[in-house]
Amino acid sequence: MSKESKPSIVLNCPLPTLDFDVITMGHGSGGLLTHQLLESGVFKVLKNEHLDQQHDGAILDLPGRIAFTTDSYVVSPIFFPGGNIGDLAVNGSVNDLAMCGAIPRFLSLSFILEEGLKMTDFWEILLSIKIASENAGVTIVTGDTKVVEKGKGDGIFINTSGIGVIHSRANIQASRIQTGDQIIMSGPMAAHGVAILSKRKGIEFETTIQSDTFAVNHLVKLLLDQFGDAVHFLRDPTRGGMATVLNEIAAQCQLGIAVEQKSIPIDEQVEGACELLGLDPMYVANEGIFMAVVRGDVADEVVAMLRHAGSMHAAVVGTVTDAHPGKVVLTTRIGGRRVVNYLTGEQLPRIC
Amino acid sequence: MSKESKPSIVLNCPLPTLDFDVITMGHGSGGLLTHQLLESGVFKVLKNEHLDQQHDGAILDLPGRIAFTTDSYVVSPIFFPGGNIGDLAVNGSVNDLAMCGAIPRFLSLSFILEEGLKMTDFWEILLSIKIASENAGVTIVTGDTKVVEKGKGDGIFINTSGIGVIHSRANIQASRIQTGDQIIMSGPMAAHGVAILSKRKGIEFETTIQSDTFAVNHLVKLLLDQFGDAVHFLRDPTRGGMATVLNEIAAQCQLGIAVEQKSIPIDEQVEGACELLGLDPMYVANEGIFMAVVRGDVADEVVAMLRHAGSMHAAVVGTVTDAHPGKVVLTTRIGGRRVVNYLTGEQLPRIC
Repeated sequence: MSKESKPSIVLNCPLPTLDFDVITMGHGSGGLLTHQLLESGVFKVLKNEHLDQQHDGAILDLPGRIAFTTDSYVVSPIFFPGGNIGDLAVNGSVNDLAMCGAIPRFLSLSFILEEGLKMTDFWEILLSIKIASENAGVTIVTGDTKVVEKGKGDGIFINTSGIGVIHSRANIQASRIQTGDQIIMSGPMAAHGVAILSKRKGIEFETTIQSDTFAVNHLVKLLLDQFGDAVHFLRDPTRGGMATVLNEIAAQCQLGIAVEQKSIPIDEQVEGACELLGLDPMYVANEGIFMAVVRGDVADEVVAMLRHAGSMHAAVVGTVTDAHPGKVVLTTRIGGRRVVNYLTGEQLPRIC
Repeated sequence: MSKESKPSIVLNCPLPTLDFDVITMGHGSGGLLTHQLLESGVFKVLKNEHLDQQHDGAILDLPGRIAFTTDSYVVSPIFFPGGNIGDLAVNGSVNDLAMCGAIPRFLSLSFILEEGLKMTDFWEILLSIKIASENAGVTIVTGDTKVVEKGKGDGIFINTSGIGVIHSRANIQASRIQTGDQIIMSGPMAAHGVAILSKRKGIEFETTIQSDTFAVNHLVKLLLDQFGDAVHFLRDPTRGGMATVLNEIAAQCQLGIAVEQKSIPIDEQVEGACELLGLDPMYVANEGIFMAVVRGDVADEVVAMLRHAGSMHAAVVGTVTDAHPGKVVLTTRIGGRRVVNYLTGEQLPRIC
């Protein structure tokens, strides 16, 4: 259940022989070249009964209560330590559904390709999408491919939208957060942002840090199976990092949040890199962890369960309080206290 | 029910006073600027109970059988005669749902903005989205905003994904198409493609031709209310035009399609422009019409109903035959016959 070391995704699944090796404008025309691209690539790799229909949409049978989410991914570079834009796009939308208390079921997949994108890169991304969706247990049921001229895009942008079925025991609402609730982080923070930054032009540095990109839905299902409506709120700290999520929570429930810096899990190497780069890791993006606001009396059990399920660094990091409504206050390692604000302006652009 | 002449969309709804007049990278950071953009713009314009939750996804109550679709829109230019990328993105996904035999209910809305996009342009697009979604009767329930650097995008790309509820009388499947079925077009072809082309750099020409961008879902609902499972198949001829749709239908049902050129509705001015530009209008994109394959005995009634509902140019344009399986054969106005193939390569890039 924990994030495994990733297999090489080129696998035993080489790129089929095609009479083109880069994407051209014709691949977005809706004509013969589009059909070739889809049939030799997308439909073959992602084969399932829904996609096989090749209609404009998929017909799905679902019970009554669903979650619906969307995200466009513009991460740069498209390949980064620990993943690429393909698995990121799957995991990201899967996680958004999980944060609604849903069991992710179906994804849509829409590409905006830049003319000149190498077919070998597109293929590797497609395979990552396949593997990530299998790992998360979701089916890609409908899609779209557009092509823009060279210089009007950036290799590849991906939109995934997702549908999930609300877990029967879930009742995730900011309004249910109350004084005494505990805030749990499922794993160490800031790995994704630092991994991306380590490959950015002009900043590259040597490191073994990998993105934490990972689908948390199986963990969230365990959490809801076991703790049901004692889980008051869920959110994944992506863009803007955990500081942003904590501020959003405080603003929505109009209660205060007290956070202990020393209890926030962070990898030593990630922390070192943040110091070196002058980044506050609380604002750095994550793509494979979540924050849960749970009833105070079950917090320790939740942490034990998460650790048992493979999230070895899960920890209680804060408490909901009525002391400073709407504000997030951090107690630093040396015992000082300061308000943690929303991120102003841009820290790391195109992180997801 | 027909496509009305469009009101000026700046309406009585001017851009609010903001301390920025173009999009900057910070608007995609997930921090304070993102919040400002969303709160002063997106959330305000598109206000509804689902968006107000400001969660990563929306929770929806739906009956069992749904349709799910996605499309990314990269149309260039973003403003064109008769519409812009905003209403196009709403109408396009609404129409895809209608083509599945669904009543469109919910849309997601995801922006990829290029740094430097003018806020006045973004505002006008947002207002068009609002009007188009109200006209179509769909609610935008979840969204996402990303920003890419100048030169890595093209003003604005939009993804809309949609969820609809399958009409109780719908049974839309290519496998239900049979010899003797009639093919109906709901309106004149090629207006969208020609309208876009009239504004393309290097090709501009003076014309009053407008895009046909329009949500056909209300018409399709009437069709299904009245004719139920006598409607065998639906498809909207967007990229690749009606020739592509006819080829897809012929390939899927492995029957032949015989089309009468003289019966295909086309506006005189559009036809003239196509001749001038050397375009075959059968391959030119449409964004506000659909093709229906219906049981032969109801075809005339269907046309009468569509005309009565405002689609004055609806017509039977072809017949399903076992004479030339998998092939589309056109009888020209002068009585010649030729095979209509898939579009090879690119005709008009970035048409939607």
